[in-house]
Amino acid sequence: MLEQLKKQVYEANMRLKNENLIIFTWGNVSGITEDRKYMVIKPSGVDYELLTPDKMVICDMDGKVIEGNLKPSSDYKTHLEIYKAALNVNGVCHTHSKWATIWAQSKRGIPNYGTTHADYFQGYIPCSRDMSNEEIREDYEKNTGKIIVETLEGKDFIKNKAVLVSSHGPFTWGNSANDSVDTAIVLEEIAYMAKYTEDLNPKIDSINGVLQSKHFDRKHGVNAYYGQGN
Amino acid sequence: MLEQLKKQVYEANMRLKNENLIIFTWGNVSGITEDRKYMVIKPSGVDYELLTPDKMVICDMDGKVIEGNLKPSSDYKTHLEIYKAALNVNGVCHTHSKWATIWAQSKRGIPNYGTTHADYFQGYIPCSRDMSNEEIREDYEKNTGKIIVETLEGKDFIKNKAVLVSSHGPFTWGNSANDSVDTAIVLEEIAYMAKYTEDLNPKIDSINGVLQSKHFDRKHGVNAYYGQGN
Amino acid sequence: MLEQLKKQVYEANMRLKNENLIIFTWGNVSGITEDRKYMVIKPSGVDYELLTPDKMVICDMDGKVIEGNLKPSSDYKTHLEIYKAALNVNGVCHTHSKWATIWAQSKRGIPNYGTTHADYFQGYIPCSRDMSNEEIREDYEKNTGKIIVETLEGKDFIKNKAVLVSSHGPFTWGNSANDSVDTAIVLEEIAYMAKYTEDLNPKIDSINGVLQSKHFDRKHGVNAYYGQGN
Amino acid sequence: MLEQLKKQVYEANMRLKNENLIIFTWGNVSGITEDRKYMVIKPSGVDYELLTPDKMVICDMDGKVIEGNLKPSSDYKTHLEIYKAALNVNGVCHTHSKWATIWAQSKRGIPNYGTTHADYFQGYIPCSRDMSNEEIREDYEKNTGKIIVETLEGKDFIKNKAVLVSSHGPFTWGNSANDSVDTAIVLEEIAYMAKYTEDLNPKIDSINGVLQSKHFDRKHGVNAYYGQGN
Repeated sequence: MLEQLKKQVYEANMRLKNENLIIFTWGNVSGITEDRKYMVIKPSGVDYELLTPDKMVICDMDGKVIEGNLKPSSDYKTHLEIYKAALNVNGVCHTHSKWATIWAQSKRGIPNYGTTHADYFQGYIPCSRDMSNEEIREDYEKNTGKIIVETLEGKDFIKNKAVLVSSHGPFTWGNSANDSVDTAIVLEEIAYMAKYTEDLNPKIDSINGVLQSKHFDRKHGVNAYYGQGN
Repeated sequence: MLEQLKKQVYEANMRLKNENLIIFTWGNVSGITEDRKYMVIKPSGVDYELLTPDKMVICDMDGKVIEGNLKPSSDYKTHLEIYKAALNVNGVCHTHSKWATIWAQSKRGIPNYGTTHADYFQGYIPCSRDMSNEEIREDYEKNTGKIIVETLEGKDFIKNKAVLVSSHGPFTWGNSANDSVDTAIVLEEIAYMAKYTEDLNPKIDSINGVLQSKHFDRKHGVNAYYGQGN
Repeated sequence: MLEQLKKQVYEANMRLKNENLIIFTWGNVSGITEDRKYMVIKPSGVDYELLTPDKMVICDMDGKVIEGNLKPSSDYKTHLEIYKAALNVNGVCHTHSKWATIWAQSKRGIPNYGTTHADYFQGYIPCSRDMSNEEIREDYEKNTGKIIVETLEGKDFIKNKAVLVSSHGPFTWGNSANDSVDTAIVLEEIAYMAKYTEDLNPKIDSINGVLQSKHFDRKHGVNAYYGQGN
Repeated sequence: MLEQLKKQVYEANMRLKNENLIIFTWGNVSGITEDRKYMVIKPSGVDYELLTPDKMVICDMDGKVIEGNLKPSSDYKTHLEIYKAALNVNGVCHTHSKWATIWAQSKRGIPNYGTTHADYFQGYIPCSRDMSNEEIREDYEKNTGKIIVETLEGKDFIKNKAVLVSSHGPFTWGNSANDSVDTAIVLEEIAYMAKYTEDLNPKIDSINGVLQSKHFDRKHGVNAYYGQGN
């Protein structure tokens, strides 16, 4: 079942490797069905060379595996929390890509310093608060999801497609599994550029809000004029 | 019409990807006809895998599309302003290449710290002033072009082939579409080296002006002796 | 003799080049037989293009070559010391990979700043003390091994799979020759990220110990739940 | 004439591109005949795609082209000065490789911080003094060679195979054209690592001299034991 979604999720996972977002098995991408009843996700710890669309794992929204005999990614509960909280999110991606992870390890969100950032994100990319020892010990992966949701409380996930999990790394999402990987690629690029922008000018401020909105809206606003329309 | 120029502009755009100056569709290159009546430019937001010479867009100097049904790059008005101000410029390129963008986001021009820089640019590579909110809100892309022209006021564009647009990224140009991409590649290299030159020696001064001129002139001066001549 | 181990050690050595851990002949990997009587190691200073499984050198535990007429890697005595001290180590790897070497040259161990580190190492990655002039002059490579063992005194080598040798570079190990190379790859990645974590937040502390244990144990603990089990 | 040397010099030049030491035509390699009467060098400003062994230029030791109708690299006089001063040097290489150039632009020599450096260079890699305006204006390339020779006054060029020319970039050399390129690759690697060693530990000192000698001598000393001997 869900052959098309499995293929999409498989292909999105393979991009993690091809786009140099991960080494080994340090990432996972999922997608959700239109009726939001099932999540398809990469199996846990399987080498990328051995992945096929058929090895993607189907869970229900309680995390119960409903097809196949592989275990889902150990982070599957994190993905589920995001889907439950953000009904316009259709794909979720987690990596340990270098620069997004460096910001997460530094426990800092990424300020918006330029139009590259503004083209994709409505603003600042936040870093979550630290988890308590209790949150780590009990249902760690679910609590990781809860803290992501808490970090974006009151915000539109589709205008804020990333959260850095403190001491850990980035989670990104989007309109599809593929879009969540696009977000991860963009995030990596702006994370790198933000670091060195601060280096070159320690007094630099965030981008002018008018310029931020101009760029975000020319791509994503109601009067967007970037691209060829549809 | 303009098949040869479309082919040149197409090939110059494809180099952006092959030379790792851009990811996704984060760049555009244009060329102008010899009579300076028409500009050929990449279409807006079209995947590089789908580009062909035929998809290049022809505009007149008011930006009116005169062939094809694709929209030109959203930055086309910026390109037009540069062509109007600098009659010896025949190709223009815009990217979000990492290091030139980092300097632009830092709102700093790139000092000339070595002969690599001097081999291509007559001096310092300037960063534009910030745009006013009004300039952003009204005809943003045209105003981006105007501010580039303002930044180089009184200078020869062919001896100063790049401007960093504050909070945004680099625009480069040259004798042809292809040359504008060469400039973007050189700019990226010297942007990287300038950053770390400052790191290694925070008190470093710009290159000695005599050495700067020696290198620029042995390649571009009236008595140039680099290369095989013609 | 030992054809299978020679093949494994050969393939592990070839990965050094393919994974960009080394240039020229700046690395060596060895493996040990199950009965811990023989070590198989790369020959000294032979170009990677010329290596074959047959050229791997077999030594006994005194370092005596027992097959072939090539000399073993000049670091063979260092490998032997590690095998003698850590009976659960079955493969050893040495490289001059950029970032692990940079930390070693800086005479600093690598603090654990995130879950990527915690997924593989039980804690901090130590840097050895400086060698005395006498230790350098007399049996240098053996003393390098002794100082690695001294650095990990009282610790389980399989939970602490790397030591940085001061002013020199990293030695890593694992359950097999191949695993020692995996460790070297992971080490390089976390060495890079740790440097920039400090850059972005000079006051950053090591990761919360509870989170460290959670990640190490979910992969390596008695109740590990990462991967598909066996 | 000199077909074999032309082939060696051609191949050494092609390595500059393949090893990512240069972009465009930013480098040149030469070799000298055994009788030290003729130098073979890359032609000036010719695209690498168009180079062939036959296009290598033969000059005598006064720089007079004695075969072919291409002009030699604009730096040919610099190469000649090195060959004249160092009779054990048989190949010379110049690049604008990123990290060696960054140190040169910073007007700093590269301290020896580790055994990777010590394996190839007897000590510190010096940066030349600035040239006077007169030296730049009159016979610039010859004076560049003279200043390299001045920088190494009293030292053995084969134990000190590189000089950074202030505000410019590295010149390296060796026993052959190919060896001069090897040196350039090693130099780039240690230049990178030295920068970040200082970053991680601003108080770091140069490597212990006994360790420096141990590593240099085990590869290059009279009792060298690295490699398979001959």
